[in-house]
Amino acid sequence: MVEPLSDADATVQSMPDASPAKWHLAHTTWFFETFVLRDHLPDYALHDPRWPFLFNSYYEAEGRRHARDRRGMITRPTLDEVRAYRAHVDAALTAALPSLPVAAQELVALGCHHEEQHQELLITDVLHLLSENPLEPALWPAARKVPVAMPNPIRWVEGSNGIVQIGHDGTGFAFDCEGPRHPALLTPHALADRTVTNGEWASFIADGGYREARWWLADGWNWVKTNAIAAPLYWEETDAGWTRFGLDGRRPVDPAAPVTHVSFYEADAYATWAGARLPTEMEWEAAAAMHDATGGNQMDTAGPVEPRPATDDAGGLFGDVWEWTGSAYRPYPGFQTAEGAVGEYNGKFMSGQFVLRGGSCATPRGHARASYRNFFYPHQRWQFTGVRLAKDLPAC
Amino acid sequence: MVEPLSDADATVQSMPDASPAKWHLAHTTWFFETFVLRDHLPDYALHDPRWPFLFNSYYEAEGRRHARDRRGMITRPTLDEVRAYRAHVDAALTAALPSLPVAAQELVALGCHHEEQHQELLITDVLHLLSENPLEPALWPAARKVPVAMPNPIRWVEGSNGIVQIGHDGTGFAFDCEGPRHPALLTPHALADRTVTNGEWASFIADGGYREARWWLADGWNWVKTNAIAAPLYWEETDAGWTRFGLDGRRPVDPAAPVTHVSFYEADAYATWAGARLPTEMEWEAAAAMHDATGGNQMDTAGPVEPRPATDDAGGLFGDVWEWTGSAYRPYPGFQTAEGAVGEYNGKFMSGQFVLRGGSCATPRGHARASYRNFFYPHQRWQFTGVRLAKDLPAC
Amino acid sequence: MVEPLSDADATVQSMPDASPAKWHLAHTTWFFETFVLRDHLPDYALHDPRWPFLFNSYYEAEGRRHARDRRGMITRPTLDEVRAYRAHVDAALTAALPSLPVAAQELVALGCHHEEQHQELLITDVLHLLSENPLEPALWPAARKVPVAMPNPIRWVEGSNGIVQIGHDGTGFAFDCEGPRHPALLTPHALADRTVTNGEWASFIADGGYREARWWLADGWNWVKTNAIAAPLYWEETDAGWTRFGLDGRRPVDPAAPVTHVSFYEADAYATWAGARLPTEMEWEAAAAMHDATGGNQMDTAGPVEPRPATDDAGGLFGDVWEWTGSAYRPYPGFQTAEGAVGEYNGKFMSGQFVLRGGSCATPRGHARASYRNFFYPHQRWQFTGVRLAKDLPAC
Amino acid sequence: MVEPLSDADATVQSMPDASPAKWHLAHTTWFFETFVLRDHLPDYALHDPRWPFLFNSYYEAEGRRHARDRRGMITRPTLDEVRAYRAHVDAALTAALPSLPVAAQELVALGCHHEEQHQELLITDVLHLLSENPLEPALWPAARKVPVAMPNPIRWVEGSNGIVQIGHDGTGFAFDCEGPRHPALLTPHALADRTVTNGEWASFIADGGYREARWWLADGWNWVKTNAIAAPLYWEETDAGWTRFGLDGRRPVDPAAPVTHVSFYEADAYATWAGARLPTEMEWEAAAAMHDATGGNQMDTAGPVEPRPATDDAGGLFGDVWEWTGSAYRPYPGFQTAEGAVGEYNGKFMSGQFVLRGGSCATPRGHARASYRNFFYPHQRWQFTGVRLAKDLPAC
Repeated sequence: MVEPLSDADATVQSMPDASPAKWHLAHTTWFFETFVLRDHLPDYALHDPRWPFLFNSYYEAEGRRHARDRRGMITRPTLDEVRAYRAHVDAALTAALPSLPVAAQELVALGCHHEEQHQELLITDVLHLLSENPLEPALWPAARKVPVAMPNPIRWVEGSNGIVQIGHDGTGFAFDCEGPRHPALLTPHALADRTVTNGEWASFIADGGYREARWWLADGWNWVKTNAIAAPLYWEETDAGWTRFGLDGRRPVDPAAPVTHVSFYEADAYATWAGARLPTEMEWEAAAAMHDATGGNQMDTAGPVEPRPATDDAGGLFGDVWEWTGSAYRPYPGFQTAEGAVGEYNGKFMSGQFVLRGGSCATPRGHARASYRNFFYPHQRWQFTGVRLAKDLPAC
Repeated sequence: MVEPLSDADATVQSMPDASPAKWHLAHTTWFFETFVLRDHLPDYALHDPRWPFLFNSYYEAEGRRHARDRRGMITRPTLDEVRAYRAHVDAALTAALPSLPVAAQELVALGCHHEEQHQELLITDVLHLLSENPLEPALWPAARKVPVAMPNPIRWVEGSNGIVQIGHDGTGFAFDCEGPRHPALLTPHALADRTVTNGEWASFIADGGYREARWWLADGWNWVKTNAIAAPLYWEETDAGWTRFGLDGRRPVDPAAPVTHVSFYEADAYATWAGARLPTEMEWEAAAAMHDATGGNQMDTAGPVEPRPATDDAGGLFGDVWEWTGSAYRPYPGFQTAEGAVGEYNGKFMSGQFVLRGGSCATPRGHARASYRNFFYPHQRWQFTGVRLAKDLPAC
Repeated sequence: MVEPLSDADATVQSMPDASPAKWHLAHTTWFFETFVLRDHLPDYALHDPRWPFLFNSYYEAEGRRHARDRRGMITRPTLDEVRAYRAHVDAALTAALPSLPVAAQELVALGCHHEEQHQELLITDVLHLLSENPLEPALWPAARKVPVAMPNPIRWVEGSNGIVQIGHDGTGFAFDCEGPRHPALLTPHALADRTVTNGEWASFIADGGYREARWWLADGWNWVKTNAIAAPLYWEETDAGWTRFGLDGRRPVDPAAPVTHVSFYEADAYATWAGARLPTEMEWEAAAAMHDATGGNQMDTAGPVEPRPATDDAGGLFGDVWEWTGSAYRPYPGFQTAEGAVGEYNGKFMSGQFVLRGGSCATPRGHARASYRNFFYPHQRWQFTGVRLAKDLPAC
Repeated sequence: MVEPLSDADATVQSMPDASPAKWHLAHTTWFFETFVLRDHLPDYALHDPRWPFLFNSYYEAEGRRHARDRRGMITRPTLDEVRAYRAHVDAALTAALPSLPVAAQELVALGCHHEEQHQELLITDVLHLLSENPLEPALWPAARKVPVAMPNPIRWVEGSNGIVQIGHDGTGFAFDCEGPRHPALLTPHALADRTVTNGEWASFIADGGYREARWWLADGWNWVKTNAIAAPLYWEETDAGWTRFGLDGRRPVDPAAPVTHVSFYEADAYATWAGARLPTEMEWEAAAAMHDATGGNQMDTAGPVEPRPATDDAGGLFGDVWEWTGSAYRPYPGFQTAEGAVGEYNGKFMSGQFVLRGGSCATPRGHARASYRNFFYPHQRWQFTGVRLAKDLPAC
């Protein structure tokens, strides 16, 4: 994935929310080195004792660290030196793996899933960086497009009603925030059978969607005005219509493809405009529980990623775009953080953010789960984020 | 309530979150004038056609308006002119009331509850203003204190379990966000029989509560560091111990009284430190449903208001301090905003804020309800806000 | 001057650069109380020992003080209490005056000139406050206008050449920064015989003056863009032409009157557009030395003040508008600050500001001098500031 | 000079004031390509028509351009592609040079001097970038140090008195702001025979120099408080004493060497503390006129540059450190900007900045002149900036 990046591409930080590709590579390595090798191998010597300061992300228990918004200052170590760091830690980890205690092996599993998260962030952070270059360079050639018919109008699918079980059931890996599994009560509702398309979004724009306060949450309207928001991130209007910037450069917007790079505020405003609402994360999970989380348009290999038009009845619950839910990211009943630095993994972020579900075209295949809870602030939109509509049904 | 305020006291705005007392008086009058008199009396002439621009708060449908953070610039009209405005509108309303259509009478009721909300804001905004004056003037003499024994240690009271009905049941007035009434599922839990006291909070401070990241949500810790937060708002440490500023000036903190003027971030950190959590708004409402919402220490008359030590078994669910819940302020299933400008009343604020329940010593008596949903941003703390602990119980 | 102000008018602070009228009244009183009564009367007891904290402006040697941008929070003491403070200090000063030592008498003189400075600031700060009120209330009725013919085109008056003596000559009072008197060398130049008019400024606007970078200093252009500057402060364009806000409310701009409320950046851009430059303070002082500094349109009594069209050959060097010079405010050769807190009077402000000369319609008559050096930052324009053009002449 | 830089080192922008090394290389090339090749070679085709948008610095007449504070986003073109750009333009220029008209040849000369300016900026910008890396990497090994005795106490050298000629005399190249040559009047004064040393600066710190308001200009004191300034840039206190960061890494401060990386505010405060003042630029130029501007410690080749202790009587007027003067950067009498985009070269920066004289250890040898006017804002200190004291002498 990093192959087409120059040392400079891998070093620059384009905004405080994003991190350099080199930093992602080093940070995921630091995670293994710190929580597995350092903590569980008595004789392990750090690859470089000065680097933990650079590559700790936010673990307060691990002490002081480099400021998040200055990660782009680290021109040294070079990309090649970071690659050597990865090789060193990989080798040490491979050698140690057979004899690691169970607790350490669980941390290895956590580290692998952690790294998958950063693979997606790396993709979206590089996309943002290239978008800030006035030349708008393409990282990869465009994927070959298979012509697709425009999707049918939305069909409403009635969801489960009454008490459902929510959260990870204990089979296989899950992050702490996905549990405990617990009962939840769903009121009568329906979900759309697909996500909102670019073509539908263009209608929202044409109808004055970004110019009328009445569709917006107050915070969202303030965000629109302050930042002069008028379209999804990376969209630009030309004489020939809307274009978008992607890892394959600037190209026309495909009206049949799912809209992406919209914030929660935009998603909520669109839903209000459309006379609908966003699903709750419980409704989404109940609907997704019966689907194959490894299907759909997810990331298999390096190369341009982009959401694809739905081509079947699967509803695209997994892959293509992360779907904003109307649920604030808060702990499940009975949630407890783990002991130690790893306990900072998710719990401390449970305020101010909204849950997204399903995974995107940039999510490593196999990383998604029905119980998976992604979360971002309501104004953030540099991830592949989209919208599925929901609505209340009358109680019988 | 406004009697001891000078024209200057009633005009100055101490921060963007707060409004001048004069503005509260005029804005609540504007509400009646606009939505009742103007909209329902064919011949009504505005008291002054230039004033709606000044005294509309946030109703986008009512057009452009004065910037919220410049409300303190309005030295004219004077306090006396605003009083004349109130007299004028009161008279017109009284004359019109008997013959108003039902829709308008409902708006009158809404206007009255709206004014009760602003009575509390007026108190807390004046408190904030006086606190910004280095002389720390008292508005009223101190209330006579009845000596109170220190409260007993917290006793845990098991809450309802399973499906409960949540939301306003349609009897009497309620704001739109309190409905629709709907079933909710509670998991096994217990609530503390009283709120956290100043004395307990002092222990939290002494134990390094504000100096250790591990108790805090990430956003909260950032807030603590950025603003150098080290105690509740209005607290100051002296050689003789903690003092607090109130409408009766600066006085010693009463260790037996409920802590107040703490943010959601502080409330959550305290709960984590105490090995507990905040209640959900559903848990709180289920517990409060059987109690008398007009009891407790609420505002009856002008004069110093402050939270009082609990003196009985009622648990102080109503009055004393608003209780932060762990629930993000979001719509209930089936919630719909009303048509027209009044539809902006509550729905558009449903992102980024947390629900508080119960009412405070500055809430007009009778304004509170078990279904009442107050809401503020997690960093705000100039209201009389406090903390009740909750915890999960093992499922049977 | 303060008579038409309400307590609220006298209390609110409209921007950090401005101070409330009440604060001006108290601060000038504090100056006498501190540096004369406290320092020179052994038995003097402070009127209120808590007030120096409130009313010290910037004297570091006098210890900590209230933050400048929070002066508007001081609703107590009231305007009447501040008036009592003034009466108290006036009485004490009057009683003490005959027996004060010379050093203290010099401080009394300094205090009087200090108070004259604050009279002008009080006027311009009140004007700014009223301008922030959407109702744009008038403080006074408009002055009766004597019809005036449009001024003649600018006539260039050749200035002195060679060595001139600059700075206060020691006769009568002067601020420290006006000396020492010293020789300066002038190169051949001419000054305009009057200041730039509103009509001429409207031509500058119509010619795209605020839209073309080439007329502007880089800092000025950045200021124009950042703040969307398009006309002098208080100007607004209507269907009937330009209007301006003044102490007599909003009225049409008089094309014959001197332009005012322009920043140094605007003054410099205008001069560049006009193919001229601003005078140096030396050139200005040499030209003004022979004129009567007590003549012209200065402030004699309370009431609306505004710049008047030139009606004679005096050139309006004194009064009407402060004239921006191209000279940075820096010390004269041999300048030394005084000992003690009073030494902070002027010297510490000698960076980043530009010198203005001449006085304005809001300057108390008799406060102006040929050697008087006023100074403001190049973006500030809430004073009555205007422009006189200058140009270089070929050396003979 | 660029040889030891990686592509990443050459791409990252460490602060808005600084530019990436790659940008310096491309911008100086753009200058030649635009003002010489494009404007004077009828058939010249731009190397890449999209690049002028990237590499125009501030020439408004050349149209829109990339935002200054986003120069670090340009990871493409790569450093090698920029090198190819330079080779291309160098070749075209070399070929065209013999037949260029005089006007174009003058622009070539201007371009060369422009490039020399950027050589120094490149050095100081790289230094700043490396200083932001917590690893504090060295770019070059330390220079071999010749032991030097501590300098003698300052000796005061009386300067010229009366009328002197100031400004470039027309022989050889000069920037527009260095003229016109004109008479200036100097009052009796003396200059120190050397610049202030690190050892003397350490005494200033030890004496509370950064903790007492009385030494500081008001703007400077505000800067100290806001930014918690306590020592020159790149200094850090360790148990073993003061260290500084340089292109050779972090090393002990040499007490005999000239202090550098101090702002105008610091320079002025030091002078006040020392009972002296800064020289005016006129005094400095008069003193320097008789010295050899190509002598002293200037930049001859790539490698670590640092100010050296004075070893002779030359006074180090040229080289070592730029010397802050007390003169605001303003136009000389008769100054006119040139026609066209090149006219933006210097004139538009003539507000808010102070003049520095003499050149530094990072100034290309031969770039300095007695008439050379460098200029920076009073808070800036990432250049090699130092202090020479001056004082007034009594008039005879």
